[in-house]
Amino acid sequence: MADVEASFNPLFSTIESLSSDFISRLSKAVSIPSVSADLTLRSKVVEMAHFIKSELTALGAEIELRELGKQEGTDVDLPPIVLGRYGKDPSKRNILVYGHYDVQPALVEDGWDTEPFKLIEKDGKLIGRGSTDDKGPVMGWINSIQAHQKAGIEFPVNLVMCFEGMEEYGSDGLDDLIRAEKDKFFKGVDATCICDNYWLGTSHPVLTYGIRGCSYYSITVSGPSADLHSGIFGGMVSEPLIDLSHILSKLVSPQGKILVPGVMDMVVPLTPEEEKLYDDIKYSMEDLYSATGSKTNLFDTEKESLMARWRYPTLSLHGIEGAFSAPGAKTVIPAKVSGKFSIRTVPNITPRELDECVIKYVNKVWEELGSKNRMEIKLLHDGMWWLSSPKHWNFEAAKNATKAVWNVDPDMTREGGSIPVTLTFEEELKKNVLLLPMGRGDDGAHSINEKLDLINYINGVKTLSAYLHYAAVQPMA
Amino acid sequence: MADVEASFNPLFSTIESLSSDFISRLSKAVSIPSVSADLTLRSKVVEMAHFIKSELTALGAEIELRELGKQEGTDVDLPPIVLGRYGKDPSKRNILVYGHYDVQPALVEDGWDTEPFKLIEKDGKLIGRGSTDDKGPVMGWINSIQAHQKAGIEFPVNLVMCFEGMEEYGSDGLDDLIRAEKDKFFKGVDATCICDNYWLGTSHPVLTYGIRGCSYYSITVSGPSADLHSGIFGGMVSEPLIDLSHILSKLVSPQGKILVPGVMDMVVPLTPEEEKLYDDIKYSMEDLYSATGSKTNLFDTEKESLMARWRYPTLSLHGIEGAFSAPGAKTVIPAKVSGKFSIRTVPNITPRELDECVIKYVNKVWEELGSKNRMEIKLLHDGMWWLSSPKHWNFEAAKNATKAVWNVDPDMTREGGSIPVTLTFEEELKKNVLLLPMGRGDDGAHSINEKLDLINYINGVKTLSAYLHYAAVQPMA
Repeated sequence: MADVEASFNPLFSTIESLSSDFISRLSKAVSIPSVSADLTLRSKVVEMAHFIKSELTALGAEIELRELGKQEGTDVDLPPIVLGRYGKDPSKRNILVYGHYDVQPALVEDGWDTEPFKLIEKDGKLIGRGSTDDKGPVMGWINSIQAHQKAGIEFPVNLVMCFEGMEEYGSDGLDDLIRAEKDKFFKGVDATCICDNYWLGTSHPVLTYGIRGCSYYSITVSGPSADLHSGIFGGMVSEPLIDLSHILSKLVSPQGKILVPGVMDMVVPLTPEEEKLYDDIKYSMEDLYSATGSKTNLFDTEKESLMARWRYPTLSLHGIEGAFSAPGAKTVIPAKVSGKFSIRTVPNITPRELDECVIKYVNKVWEELGSKNRMEIKLLHDGMWWLSSPKHWNFEAAKNATKAVWNVDPDMTREGGSIPVTLTFEEELKKNVLLLPMGRGDDGAHSINEKLDLINYINGVKTLSAYLHYAAVQPMA
Repeated sequence: MADVEASFNPLFSTIESLSSDFISRLSKAVSIPSVSADLTLRSKVVEMAHFIKSELTALGAEIELRELGKQEGTDVDLPPIVLGRYGKDPSKRNILVYGHYDVQPALVEDGWDTEPFKLIEKDGKLIGRGSTDDKGPVMGWINSIQAHQKAGIEFPVNLVMCFEGMEEYGSDGLDDLIRAEKDKFFKGVDATCICDNYWLGTSHPVLTYGIRGCSYYSITVSGPSADLHSGIFGGMVSEPLIDLSHILSKLVSPQGKILVPGVMDMVVPLTPEEEKLYDDIKYSMEDLYSATGSKTNLFDTEKESLMARWRYPTLSLHGIEGAFSAPGAKTVIPAKVSGKFSIRTVPNITPRELDECVIKYVNKVWEELGSKNRMEIKLLHDGMWWLSSPKHWNFEAAKNATKAVWNVDPDMTREGGSIPVTLTFEEELKKNVLLLPMGRGDDGAHSINEKLDLINYINGVKTLSAYLHYAAVQPMA
């Protein structure tokens, strides 16, 4: 590997010298409010695709904006997928990188300290919607190309790029595209690297070899044909929200115990070997306290907490649609309310068996309530869990890169959140997929005051670059 | 009473001949979106006060728009109270009438079939926000003055008017004004008539001698310092919304049984005499089905249903603030959620004893949950129940008026909803208060497609007018 590492000194110092360019690139990206969930901002999502295209084209990459047709249930065009290629040398390996250029919604009124769509550099942090999820990482790949050119160092692989614009809203159209292009655009890919998750804590780099799946449900209870005045009708009619609160309270205990029978039975039993893996992970309860800003932990030890996040299913309640949700006091009996909840899934829960357990149980709870209202439970979407082998050369390349940049061995972690495309890439391309995160566990993706530490951004560009160099030469054994 | 009734024929036919004027007046009133809950529409609420002033001034009434200062917690002026006087003859009785000119919020997106702030006449119905609650009735008094002038019939009483603009948002400032003016503006009032409720069903006029009170609470559970991603943190931390769903489910059963100990113990026991009062009420389960658009009744008989609405307390869940409430699927763990519920109160529940029961019980339930989150229960507002004597001359006047217009004896009813000002007027002025409704039980006040039947509007003007004539001469015994 000595050949590889020889280039790192000039490459890394070039990356540092370009840091204000890189911040400026991220700043432009953050300023485009590419919120995929908000149809009124669709043009901004598309604008973001064009921004990436122009940045990459300027660096000599070949870019296609692949149109996907209309968004399901609307007459609005989906944002295009950015398909890119930098380098076509048949003697080099083809490394596919994935990221997304859309972001979660964000409003100052949600409680942000700053304008969410204006990147602010403060106390070593780059604050803004999308900074860490996932514009920072997407810019990271572009920055890497720029740094190689500036340093006059040959790019070590052919970079195959796939950046989508609907990740935060179900990745509409992505799976179909991967299936359709597996023997065309994606032909010849040797390994995949996804930069769209986070370190476990705030100080130690990680590589991720497993993610939980997610099955998202809604339970809708409806009664009267319109909202009623609680003074006039309170006491005379069954209230949908009362029924719903009873159902929701029977899904999960305050201690996080899933009350739906059958779910825990599907979980792979813990072996002593697996349990030992948790001993060496650099994670402390303080990391959890700092990331959540509270001491509302369900478990007292790091090991139990990580197992709850990685290898056990959990059930979360997200909210209720149709009820009174504004500040103040409104004396309404809501006519139709939908409770939203999701179950994070792990080996060997299959989505269809889970649906069966959940639907059967909710129907039973409903029967027991004895209400005259109507109840419907629906699966809104699901994504399968994924578990990979961290011994693959793709992971070795990332381990070496992490060591070269951060001077430590990365922890091998799993993720609680779902990145469904991981599984699709692995199943369709039959090549190893690596999750190589850039940001930290307290970045606040999906929350207010989302940030990416400046050091993570700059060292992230170094890590992605070093990873490509190792991936180019790592023995394939 | 023969003298009184002699004037009814010409008066009533004049009212009919003016019906298009009256519709046009209501149409102008509805077109002003005087939503008191929406600070951005405050100028429209004020505009509505000026509209009433100009209508009444044109008819020769003396009107003052009484300013009330700033709305609590804002630097926005409260809308003024319209204080009016029509006639100052010391030989006549002084009848105080109350109504409100503000309305509930309304958006087409809520599900209205028509523009809420445009009065539509269709199939004998006047459809629009405020048509029945309470612009129709307020216009009713103005129409009555106009009709007397047009018919050349002497107005039978001195009409003292009090129309407020904050009824739908807590009647901010009204109680203070009544207390301050009880020996000034309101001095000499002989009886009060409030036209701001509804017939029980859809076909039979009623007079109302009792209303329930309302105590409105919020339970706030908070944990993390900001919303969390359920993939990353689900299973590691206590979720405020899970805790809240458990508390809410322990407040009331799906069958409407209040689970808070002590509440039912405060309710006055049912006597055989009281029970008999329910036998003659013209109300059928079909009325309930048609008003709610469903058959989700909690009780099978009219009597039980009416008792649940009038003489027993009920607990309604209104909604949750702070959770995910939009359509679609968001994988958030909300950091802070407030569940809103209210209890409708009846004799002899006192608000302070109720607070004690509720707070003690919720705290006990919270302790049993064993959560590390924080919980706070707060009373947002309360209003006392009210029960009057339906044998008073004020009620006799309204009974005679109803008989003269509708040719039936009105049912004597109570109300499930609260109109706190009723109690204030009675306590401060020490004079009888009568609730004389104009609209029907299916008018959809506070809901979508609010309407007032045209016949109720026109016959309502006749009834209010006839009531004033009887009130002028009814023996005070």
